Amino acid sequence: MPKIDLDSIEQVSRTGYPPPFDRQVQGRWYRRLAPASGLTAFGVSHVVLKPGAWSSQRHWHAGEDEFLVMVSGEGVLVDDQGEHILRPGDCAAFPMNDGNGHHVQNRSEEDCAFIVVGSGTNTGGDYPDIDMSFTSEGFVHKDGRPY
Amino acid sequence: MPKIDLDSIEQVSRTGYPPPFDRQVQGRWYRRLAPASGLTAFGVSHVVLKPGAWSSQRHWHAGEDEFLVMVSGEGVLVDDQGEHILRPGDCAAFPMNDGNGHHVQNRSEEDCAFIVVGSGTNTGGDYPDIDMSFTSEGFVHKDGRPY
Repeated sequence: MPKIDLDSIEQVSRTGYPPPFDRQVQGRWYRRLAPASGLTAFGVSHVVLKPGAWSSQRHWHAGEDEFLVMVSGEGVLVDDQGEHILRPGDCAAFPMNDGNGHHVQNRSEEDCAFIVVGSGTNTGGDYPDIDMSFTSEGFVHKDGRPY
Repeated sequence: MPKIDLDSIEQVSRTGYPPPFDRQVQGRWYRRLAPASGLTAFGVSHVVLKPGAWSSQRHWHAGEDEFLVMVSGEGVLVDDQGEHILRPGDCAAFPMNDGNGHHVQNRSEEDCAFIVVGSGTNTGGDYPDIDMSFTSEGFVHKDGRPY
């Protein structure tokens, strides 16, 4: 059935971030919707941020487009242009290789949730605020040493 | 700025459907978000259905994945398995070539709105309820004659 039963899909808070960068995403709970529903042309995640949680470290992708739509609660999108409140129905787009580091923070006292879609080739990208970049091989220091 | 100003993007109710199949989508108002925001890896539309409007004729794509998330109001997803109410936050996925004709109807007395993402190759598909199919060349009768 194409309507997705979200409760039937495992919700996880895993991250591959090395410490201490994993701390801010411990309250990020996500479900991978594409494998569960048979989609192969793009990825889709349903993400819940607990109060205080971040969606990721602020980052941009060299080879992947991302699109986000808020579905409940309130988040704060932080990017190179500043801070932007996201409420249900608000959308944001991050074209590949734009160099504009972005993430969503939940600064409220309630959960917030969004859908994020991504597609492209994992050719890496950068985290402008911290000593970490990402490559198709994994996380590295800015000087190239692997984590 | 990656947060999208929806009001700045033209909202249209165009359709290429030949009469009489255009009638049910006259209250469908959509914005194409990808060209406006620089995304190229997939398409994204913000769609508002006025009371009584349909998202499309019931259809499926041979070569394109689709994903939908409801953002406001209430719609009725109709597919081969029956009818499913969609409320804000509800999601649906339509893998390419699944042969499961689907669309959303607004049977309520208020507008409803959703985001739909699509990606893949336009190799056509079918409208199971009517004498129309679609090809990469356009709309045809079931016997192949073009509209």
